[in-house]
Amino acid sequence: MDHEDRSKLIDMQIKPYKKDSLYSYTLGAFPTYELILSRPDLVYRVLVHSSFTDMDRLKSLCNVNGIPIETNNKLIGRLSGKENCYVVGVFEKYTSQLSMDKPHIVLVNPSNMGNLGTIIRTIVGFGIYDIAIVLPGADIFNPKVVRASMGALFKLNFQPYQSFDEYSRQYKDHDIFTFMLNGKKTLDIKDCPKSKLFSLVFGNEASGLDDSFLSVGTSIMIPQSPDVDSLNLTIAVGIGSYVFMNQNS
Amino acid sequence: MDHEDRSKLIDMQIKPYKKDSLYSYTLGAFPTYELILSRPDLVYRVLVHSSFTDMDRLKSLCNVNGIPIETNNKLIGRLSGKENCYVVGVFEKYTSQLSMDKPHIVLVNPSNMGNLGTIIRTIVGFGIYDIAIVLPGADIFNPKVVRASMGALFKLNFQPYQSFDEYSRQYKDHDIFTFMLNGKKTLDIKDCPKSKLFSLVFGNEASGLDDSFLSVGTSIMIPQSPDVDSLNLTIAVGIGSYVFMNQNS
Repeated sequence: MDHEDRSKLIDMQIKPYKKDSLYSYTLGAFPTYELILSRPDLVYRVLVHSSFTDMDRLKSLCNVNGIPIETNNKLIGRLSGKENCYVVGVFEKYTSQLSMDKPHIVLVNPSNMGNLGTIIRTIVGFGIYDIAIVLPGADIFNPKVVRASMGALFKLNFQPYQSFDEYSRQYKDHDIFTFMLNGKKTLDIKDCPKSKLFSLVFGNEASGLDDSFLSVGTSIMIPQSPDVDSLNLTIAVGIGSYVFMNQNS
Repeated sequence: MDHEDRSKLIDMQIKPYKKDSLYSYTLGAFPTYELILSRPDLVYRVLVHSSFTDMDRLKSLCNVNGIPIETNNKLIGRLSGKENCYVVGVFEKYTSQLSMDKPHIVLVNPSNMGNLGTIIRTIVGFGIYDIAIVLPGADIFNPKVVRASMGALFKLNFQPYQSFDEYSRQYKDHDIFTFMLNGKKTLDIKDCPKSKLFSLVFGNEASGLDDSFLSVGTSIMIPQSPDVDSLNLTIAVGIGSYVFMNQNS
């Protein structure tokens, strides 16, 4: 298939995102800039709304990287379904591999796309660049995830797994810490477990990790008052990532 | 005005929430239970959808507290604007006072209602029961805030202030810590400032605290990688609350 044929094929595929799409979208100027700066080779095209005001910067960034740029209000409207979106990046989905020698976050069956994006932004903020997702779970390439991550998605490695066992067999050198409401060890900043190479494991928003995870590595409980049902997942991941990274810095 | 007249007046007021409404709503069973358990005296009425399945428990809780309960699908639809809402609590808005001798969270111009609710849930989870809001800021009684708080709103004290000065003049015994991207002290779990009575101050989601806050108390920076713009506000409040409360436990 020559380049022109391929272009036509991709043009046909620029439609509202589905899980099996080969392409996904950055909705908004900020994540689109992050995409172009982090993964220019994957950007197929940038769509701009005619009322976008920072055109010079975007144009020069696209030109430097050989990325076509196109004004197309209608297509942006169709892809974003939102009024306030002025820039859309169309990019090819990709796979990546977790680092063997870096700390990991492992999310077991995360279901909320906004949470997943915010978690990605948060862990990158704390210097963790590897995330495993045990399926079924939210689609990391859904534009809602990309948007909530503020483009931090393009800075980390991620890998889906069919089961936690499949993950843990692959990374035997990582110390496993499972975050659970009934975890055996209370997370205390004066006595945080010391580990250079760790995996912090978190369960689904509604159901958490089941009790089988109590005997996988060290189970951790973030102390909390009886006046709330539980912390939300994003906060729990944020606290865990901050404390473990800070402890080891 | 006798009781019947007052009831009619309130019935007229059961319409989609506005900032100047005298009443607000808990949308969903969980926050409604929290409302009834925490502030039964303020509940005017509970509305139930005919397909709600946990009717016995709700009915007995309402009966014990003398709260009228009414099946009204249409009104629920109008108030919630959502398909998945089966229970609505109608409650009278109220004022409260911050404790003089407990730690506070101070939010300067918080704008996002979901964030405000999640922050309330999070700080209550970490044992902080007092929040000051420097105006302009999100309306704490908006049903979106109530819902995101999962009903934790009913467990804490809150007070609006016209300015940060107005707040700080009232609580001179609190040590002030301002969270800023350019804060002078890095928040390190091995060397967290020790304070028994503290106010943790956070700025607006987009703009943070302006530089005038560098010289108010101790400015704190949560360390983060250059690969993100900033942590989100909810995470920053969560980390600050956890570390300060844990340090002092």
